[in-house]
Amino acid sequence: MKPSEKQGVAARGDDPWKECVEVAVQLAVRAGQIIRKAFTEEKRVFTKTSAADLVTETDHFVENLIVSALKEKFPSHRFIAEEATAAGSKCVLSTSPTWIIDPVDGTCNFVHRFPTVAVSIGFAVNQELEFGVIYHCTEERLYTGRRGQGAYCNDKRLQVSKVTDISKALILTEIGPKRDPETLKLFLSNMERLLKAQAHGIRVIGSATLALCHLASGAADAYYQFGLHCWDLAAATVIIREAGGVVIDTSGGPLDLMSCRVIAAGTQEMAAFIAQQIQTIHYGRDDES
Amino acid sequence: MKPSEKQGVAARGDDPWKECVEVAVQLAVRAGQIIRKAFTEEKRVFTKTSAADLVTETDHFVENLIVSALKEKFPSHRFIAEEATAAGSKCVLSTSPTWIIDPVDGTCNFVHRFPTVAVSIGFAVNQELEFGVIYHCTEERLYTGRRGQGAYCNDKRLQVSKVTDISKALILTEIGPKRDPETLKLFLSNMERLLKAQAHGIRVIGSATLALCHLASGAADAYYQFGLHCWDLAAATVIIREAGGVVIDTSGGPLDLMSCRVIAAGTQEMAAFIAQQIQTIHYGRDDES
Repeated sequence: MKPSEKQGVAARGDDPWKECVEVAVQLAVRAGQIIRKAFTEEKRVFTKTSAADLVTETDHFVENLIVSALKEKFPSHRFIAEEATAAGSKCVLSTSPTWIIDPVDGTCNFVHRFPTVAVSIGFAVNQELEFGVIYHCTEERLYTGRRGQGAYCNDKRLQVSKVTDISKALILTEIGPKRDPETLKLFLSNMERLLKAQAHGIRVIGSATLALCHLASGAADAYYQFGLHCWDLAAATVIIREAGGVVIDTSGGPLDLMSCRVIAAGTQEMAAFIAQQIQTIHYGRDDES
Repeated sequence: MKPSEKQGVAARGDDPWKECVEVAVQLAVRAGQIIRKAFTEEKRVFTKTSAADLVTETDHFVENLIVSALKEKFPSHRFIAEEATAAGSKCVLSTSPTWIIDPVDGTCNFVHRFPTVAVSIGFAVNQELEFGVIYHCTEERLYTGRRGQGAYCNDKRLQVSKVTDISKALILTEIGPKRDPETLKLFLSNMERLLKAQAHGIRVIGSATLALCHLASGAADAYYQFGLHCWDLAAATVIIREAGGVVIDTSGGPLDLMSCRVIAAGTQEMAAFIAQQIQTIHYGRDDES
């Protein structure tokens, strides 16, 4: 029985998306091997929405590899993928089983051979995230989360931190692709607010996906960002929630996967505190052309 | 013949500090094993100069282990070490063979189990840096640099990037321990200047030492910081120079190891550009009590 025929019949020991998870893991690891091999080679680099929004031939190659393999195996499924979207494909999360893919998260790192690069494969059904698979290409760490079944890094169960007090917190964020003066002012002002609130520190590692995996593993207490995309968030959201964490909108309300903004934290209190502190940076939505 | 007896007789194939390098490598790896074991355990955390300047029992334990082993082996040598200095020991770089040690670089990361933590052991004679050994505790990567003999990560020779143009550059920095409003304003203003100059990105990983190792490996194009110490810089400076890079003062002049500030870059042009852009943040000197 194919997973697509099993939709809605999930029960104890009968996971309708088991084969999908297995295929996602295989493809993430295979893609990661390709990225790892390409890591030290010369790259042709192109820009997308800004001078800081980069893409390489490897992003395209890996996305095509993952999407074509999944389409062959699961022909009725839908796809949202970073480079196809950049090329004009619509980015719509319907009720159909939908794969949400970032072939190379941390492309700027990849271009610079800065070893913080991941493959991210998320999967949603009825607009609900079912599982996420993230592969740290250079450190060969596999993060997985399956709704209702926990989150793991390789074989180790993940657990978020329980810190509620900002003065005991390590915070993660990313700069985002927009670099106009107003955006930079807001980005830096948000950092300033959290440092003035006595956060232990702020880290910027250049991969939203891997930063969110650090959060899931309890290595940081909160993450916030404006200007990331559904393919940065989909897989990581399942992993964080299954590690006991919260993923919400920057307004403090429920996460909107297409809104290009997020707060994730180990505790509701920490997420709410960050939401109160930071100012909104306006990016468009993923589902608006 | 002990290394201390050999001072000044360096020649091809006759390195007077060979044994010192070997002992430093052994101790860095041994210390790294201890830190790796302590990484996931509960820690008692204390503060030093500010709420963001942390220390744990592991910092003290590892420093004592390294310094006592070196003192036994090289009784005539001098020592500058982070926690001894914090406890009041004088921080003076004389002409004697001097070990400059950071037992746990990235203590805030260590406290949070954020896997970017290193042991750093530098060695200077006649106030000139002779070699540096840095061990990435969780990824088990050993960085070494020996004056005139190149720099390595494990067995791979390191080579800095040749980027001269800020608009093609990935920049690394750290926040520093001071968090008063004026310091934060300058720190954020420096980030803003480099982002407005169209740097590809800025990364903040929470370990000056490992950031400098990324620079040595060509994974980033420049590093700058105010508020770091000679034990963050000593080992990394040899490694970067031996990888072909430059390490200078933030004024653009020669490095002053005790000045608590630095610019490192793959090229002289990049280092000079950063020096022109950034504003000085005043920290005290390491050699002033």
